[in-house]
Amino acid sequence: MGQWSDRAYALFEEQQAERGIDIEWVKGRLTGLKVETPSWGYGDSGTRFKVFKKVGVPRNPFEKLDDAAVVHQLTGACPTVAIHIPWDKVDDYGELRSYAESVGLRIGAVNPNVFQEDDYMLGSVTNADPQIRRKAINHLLECVDVMKQVGSDALSLWFADGTNYPGQAHLRRRKQWLQEALAETYQALSSNMKMLIEYKFFEPGFYHTDLADWGMAFNAAAKLGPQAEVLVDTGHHAPGTNVEHIVSYLLDEGKLGGFHFNSRKYADDDLIVGSTNPYELFLIFYQILEASRDVNPLVRETAENIAYMIDQSHSIEPKIPAMIRSIANIQTQYAKALLINHDDVRALQAKNDVLGAENAVRSAFEMDVTPLLTAVREEQGLPVDPMRAFLESGYQEHIASRGIGGSSW
Amino acid sequence: MGQWSDRAYALFEEQQAERGIDIEWVKGRLTGLKVETPSWGYGDSGTRFKVFKKVGVPRNPFEKLDDAAVVHQLTGACPTVAIHIPWDKVDDYGELRSYAESVGLRIGAVNPNVFQEDDYMLGSVTNADPQIRRKAINHLLECVDVMKQVGSDALSLWFADGTNYPGQAHLRRRKQWLQEALAETYQALSSNMKMLIEYKFFEPGFYHTDLADWGMAFNAAAKLGPQAEVLVDTGHHAPGTNVEHIVSYLLDEGKLGGFHFNSRKYADDDLIVGSTNPYELFLIFYQILEASRDVNPLVRETAENIAYMIDQSHSIEPKIPAMIRSIANIQTQYAKALLINHDDVRALQAKNDVLGAENAVRSAFEMDVTPLLTAVREEQGLPVDPMRAFLESGYQEHIASRGIGGSSW
Amino acid sequence: MGQWSDRAYALFEEQQAERGIDIEWVKGRLTGLKVETPSWGYGDSGTRFKVFKKVGVPRNPFEKLDDAAVVHQLTGACPTVAIHIPWDKVDDYGELRSYAESVGLRIGAVNPNVFQEDDYMLGSVTNADPQIRRKAINHLLECVDVMKQVGSDALSLWFADGTNYPGQAHLRRRKQWLQEALAETYQALSSNMKMLIEYKFFEPGFYHTDLADWGMAFNAAAKLGPQAEVLVDTGHHAPGTNVEHIVSYLLDEGKLGGFHFNSRKYADDDLIVGSTNPYELFLIFYQILEASRDVNPLVRETAENIAYMIDQSHSIEPKIPAMIRSIANIQTQYAKALLINHDDVRALQAKNDVLGAENAVRSAFEMDVTPLLTAVREEQGLPVDPMRAFLESGYQEHIASRGIGGSSW
Amino acid sequence: MGQWSDRAYALFEEQQAERGIDIEWVKGRLTGLKVETPSWGYGDSGTRFKVFKKVGVPRNPFEKLDDAAVVHQLTGACPTVAIHIPWDKVDDYGELRSYAESVGLRIGAVNPNVFQEDDYMLGSVTNADPQIRRKAINHLLECVDVMKQVGSDALSLWFADGTNYPGQAHLRRRKQWLQEALAETYQALSSNMKMLIEYKFFEPGFYHTDLADWGMAFNAAAKLGPQAEVLVDTGHHAPGTNVEHIVSYLLDEGKLGGFHFNSRKYADDDLIVGSTNPYELFLIFYQILEASRDVNPLVRETAENIAYMIDQSHSIEPKIPAMIRSIANIQTQYAKALLINHDDVRALQAKNDVLGAENAVRSAFEMDVTPLLTAVREEQGLPVDPMRAFLESGYQEHIASRGIGGSSW
Repeated sequence: MGQWSDRAYALFEEQQAERGIDIEWVKGRLTGLKVETPSWGYGDSGTRFKVFKKVGVPRNPFEKLDDAAVVHQLTGACPTVAIHIPWDKVDDYGELRSYAESVGLRIGAVNPNVFQEDDYMLGSVTNADPQIRRKAINHLLECVDVMKQVGSDALSLWFADGTNYPGQAHLRRRKQWLQEALAETYQALSSNMKMLIEYKFFEPGFYHTDLADWGMAFNAAAKLGPQAEVLVDTGHHAPGTNVEHIVSYLLDEGKLGGFHFNSRKYADDDLIVGSTNPYELFLIFYQILEASRDVNPLVRETAENIAYMIDQSHSIEPKIPAMIRSIANIQTQYAKALLINHDDVRALQAKNDVLGAENAVRSAFEMDVTPLLTAVREEQGLPVDPMRAFLESGYQEHIASRGIGGSSW
Repeated sequence: MGQWSDRAYALFEEQQAERGIDIEWVKGRLTGLKVETPSWGYGDSGTRFKVFKKVGVPRNPFEKLDDAAVVHQLTGACPTVAIHIPWDKVDDYGELRSYAESVGLRIGAVNPNVFQEDDYMLGSVTNADPQIRRKAINHLLECVDVMKQVGSDALSLWFADGTNYPGQAHLRRRKQWLQEALAETYQALSSNMKMLIEYKFFEPGFYHTDLADWGMAFNAAAKLGPQAEVLVDTGHHAPGTNVEHIVSYLLDEGKLGGFHFNSRKYADDDLIVGSTNPYELFLIFYQILEASRDVNPLVRETAENIAYMIDQSHSIEPKIPAMIRSIANIQTQYAKALLINHDDVRALQAKNDVLGAENAVRSAFEMDVTPLLTAVREEQGLPVDPMRAFLESGYQEHIASRGIGGSSW
Repeated sequence: MGQWSDRAYALFEEQQAERGIDIEWVKGRLTGLKVETPSWGYGDSGTRFKVFKKVGVPRNPFEKLDDAAVVHQLTGACPTVAIHIPWDKVDDYGELRSYAESVGLRIGAVNPNVFQEDDYMLGSVTNADPQIRRKAINHLLECVDVMKQVGSDALSLWFADGTNYPGQAHLRRRKQWLQEALAETYQALSSNMKMLIEYKFFEPGFYHTDLADWGMAFNAAAKLGPQAEVLVDTGHHAPGTNVEHIVSYLLDEGKLGGFHFNSRKYADDDLIVGSTNPYELFLIFYQILEASRDVNPLVRETAENIAYMIDQSHSIEPKIPAMIRSIANIQTQYAKALLINHDDVRALQAKNDVLGAENAVRSAFEMDVTPLLTAVREEQGLPVDPMRAFLESGYQEHIASRGIGGSSW
Repeated sequence: MGQWSDRAYALFEEQQAERGIDIEWVKGRLTGLKVETPSWGYGDSGTRFKVFKKVGVPRNPFEKLDDAAVVHQLTGACPTVAIHIPWDKVDDYGELRSYAESVGLRIGAVNPNVFQEDDYMLGSVTNADPQIRRKAINHLLECVDVMKQVGSDALSLWFADGTNYPGQAHLRRRKQWLQEALAETYQALSSNMKMLIEYKFFEPGFYHTDLADWGMAFNAAAKLGPQAEVLVDTGHHAPGTNVEHIVSYLLDEGKLGGFHFNSRKYADDDLIVGSTNPYELFLIFYQILEASRDVNPLVRETAENIAYMIDQSHSIEPKIPAMIRSIANIQTQYAKALLINHDDVRALQAKNDVLGAENAVRSAFEMDVTPLLTAVREEQGLPVDPMRAFLESGYQEHIASRGIGGSSW
């Protein structure tokens, strides 16, 4: 009679074999799942009412990398870090890249910021003022240059551009200006670079948002070319929207570039991934794994090359634990989705067996993947409980010396 | 000192001249606005809980045309009638066409119905069963044939296809089957025919809808070619969606084919047009009129060739009065939008004058266009109050002899 | 090396003991969970677009009881059946009661129907016409009489009353008329009877619903007295509403009378329970189990006396399997909630440990309760897989002789 | 032939007389409408992404009163100003009161702030930490004391209290703690003081809000006593909520204490009143005016004693013009509602004339009240166009000397 976890895993393996699941394939997939964490996720953030300052928040981009490195060491799943310019502006981007490598990381997506300067109050690349549009485009181009210096292959674009009042602005002209800005930036990309175009239902624009939904981002990307793809932020949709349907649709078009993962119940709540409706996250992974078996190579390749990124705003929770919790939740739902027997599901779907097909998907969700995650972590030499490992590591106490008020932005 | 309405109109004209509005142009536009009514809008309909049967409901397609003719006689705005096959199935479509012409009407859009046969329970053109897909496509082709017989130039496509449960069906395959069906149907169109593709957020599918939003309809249409365009049903959106933004977007792409007008507060409530949020209807017309002045001829032409149609489900209200009310509400909001001084608005938008531009649009909405509508109706020899004219006409009493239970479907 | 399920259960028991969970208590609770099925859930239903007729649908109330008896035999969890008057109207209610008992059932809640007669088109107890209000109240009183005959102790009230248009009706008078009707009905109740008052966000009223939310139902019940309580239909809320918060609130007030369980993503979709967002169902049970440990006896007693009922509309799925699936899903989420260690959760909450408390709740959700459910079913002599048992029972083939078109209503 | 506006008004008066409207009563009502502006509405505010700093923003509570005084001088409608403690904390509240009076104002509602100190991150009066609850209650009591010093008769309570994650906190205990805090504060009120309890659907809590809807605020107020009433912030509801129904309901219960007016399309967008859906604002006033004619004196008195307040967050628009625009929009919709012929509406409602009653309400909305507003302003010696008057006044240039970065908070 061995350890509880060993017995649990043995039983799990037996169960999956019976279900026709290749457990080694599952483990390989699980080990291969990499999720990018955002540098800004280690800093303070909040709501419009208050940003609560936390002790130990990083004071510069290098300390953000330190924190991200800890998350990667504990999870083995987060080798890259997204940066935000100018929040992560440094004099020497080569130094930033070297520092990242020195702590076991690489720089991931570069995120331009064209929403926090006074000039951008009424729009950046869609501003009626041509000088402001020029300024915004120049910043986008600057970020492409930063990509080259830090070795990034993804330009991740979110525009806060929108309006608050009917009549405030000329919607069609703004649409055209946006496309012009994207086109000029696209031209500047190297051939190994992707442009990921994010959309958002609302906020900070409360009447209209220039890129309001996946359709607008998709159409913009389609006009640009194959290096432009859509970025799905799971919190950027109207109430009730079927996000996994959009994921499936974009996969079929070969245009799903990446995710910003987070959770929401109301608006763009930016909570810990998987904390509000874990089934939705599972169903997203179901669609991705389904597509990864498609007969169409474009669909398969798209499914295998998704940039998974976290984008959360930690208002009340400690930053590093919140990130570790998100990674664990993603691994949990991904692991469950890996237990779906797609042959069974497809056969039941083909027979129009509504309840059978539904059950074949849902029953995978109801399994406990803790034994699997434990086994995979042990095999990788990682802590089996990354959260506990972090809390016991003393790191939080260590960074307390940073004090309060480290700049997130 | 003449009649009240004459004095009111004189004052109105003076006011508009001062605002730089060409009142003759406004009147021409208003006279030119034609709105198609649906044959099924004259029949009984309701909610899933109950269809309340009304006295006097038409018993066949010819009686529906009779009712539609009355609406056109009273409003001068509804010369065409949309039909639904098989609800309006007749042995001799040439006879239906002739009858329509004999009462002063033409047949407008033809609407296939691929959702009310048992075969279609789990989908029509997206059904996993190839025989059902074939049957559905054949019906679409049959409707193209009907179009030729009745002289229609618009095929209006709404698919109830969707699913109720995660995992129930293979989303990507359904997407492909849908496109195949559209493509085959598109090939059958004559060169003067348009295909209008409608989308819907949900219902009757409660998990996913195959054409769930404008983006999916737009992409389908774009792949087909220039005769395929998007149909916007104002009630088919997620809560909070900015419908006029979508309208503006589709206009800019040259892909806005038509509207199904109705009102909603919650889901697809299918209420009388303009009864819930009249400002939204005004803002839709603002975008259309804006586009009709675009420098791009494609955008202008698209804006000038929109098929305006009503699609309501009258659960509790008398049918013909409900239709007259909708027409009046549409005319009211269109008239208000015609009073916008676009040069002013554009100039204020170009200066980033948020409150000025907003005011220039909204203030047109606050004007009372009753004197204008009265004048235009008088000039056309129409009753100045179509609702009162109907109630006093005796027509409702006349059709009482039809009894209860006329078949809407 | 015994059976897989035996070993799985042994491991499960060991795991729970380690977590401080009293497994015998859990099993007792699970065995004790009873869920009422609705007679109308065995009949055809659908959307406003189409009711798809199924083979084998019951032709009368007695056949509905036959089907319900099968569900109870297979699950052991459904000893009572809710009836709807007049859908289940019979000449001799004593006979209906006896028949129910003869197949191992009891009659549960009686549901008046004041929405399907033409008189009720513009309201029943809130109709501006006093004769219609009188008629509706008389029907409510008739249902109290039926309760006495069938041995029911719950009057379950849902009013479709509402309006479609602003200005259509006098909201405050309708509010008063509603309260008068409830008061007169309340007076007729025997002391052992409960009145359960349901609310609904919208539909069939698309402008306002007289009992639109829990607050209106609660206030009505509070004015009536202790026998009146609120009924929560999980699908009757605005998008995003935190249903478990409402549950918790009503428990604290001692006014939560029962549930109508179903699932929804958009409106009142009436899908199989637990199929859309299983975590929400789990969190509802968490709040109930929390309250069952309250220091306040009123709260505890309320939590222990909730009437759990299913209310689904099966548009596309076979009726009996859909019901079995719902029961299984409820048992699954209830079982998971029983695994929450409330002492741990409370201690972490008291320390303001956000991530700790969240984890203590969520981790119970991630456990696989299949071994537990299997064990409990075996101990009760029930089939371990009720769905398979049904499909293999031949019952569906047996009832095929009923043919198509059995009347649900 | 006089001025255009004189002729327009003469025609308007004639029209209203014909409709049975007592124009002098209308003008009296319109003159009597007073709307409180918030001190914080003159300062900078924004979204979580950015607070854009404006030139000329007040640097202290006295300068906020200066700005509010200008709004009152131009509109004649804003004699009181709501203050927020500690944003408007001063050493000597008597001085603040005197200053207000010296510029023609009075201090209106006092708004405690228990959400911007670090202690309140996880709740104020509902915090699990008793010391923090004590601190929060003490602040509420301090604000009652401030009320006495500034001569305020309304304590306006909004709690940001809520949680972000399921399981994070004990919902029922928080409910009880909240009630305890309210009760202690209520005891401190003088007999002339009202406590106005605000509710909010979400934000900053993204899982649950302790006072999430009108029902919770209503129940809290009902337990406290007659001096406690509900405050309706028009932007604090779930998507699609019928706000005027809630208004009507609270009026009928004698518990509608006041409004925070603003506009929204998505979440709590806090835009200029009447800018998103003006018809909703009109319908709210319709319900209020309806109630002001009720047979029940409690309902009438409640309707006549509503505290109308503005609560906006001006992200992009100049502050004083935004306030003037809101006042004008409120006056416009109130004026339109005053043109409803309630006898007609009630008679049509009593006859169940759906379209007739709807038309009797809506047609008032379609009238142009500009001539009326102009006449009333002239009679009061106010500028007929307050916005233009402000822009031409030079005040904006005058306050430019305040520079950038005046503290709103």
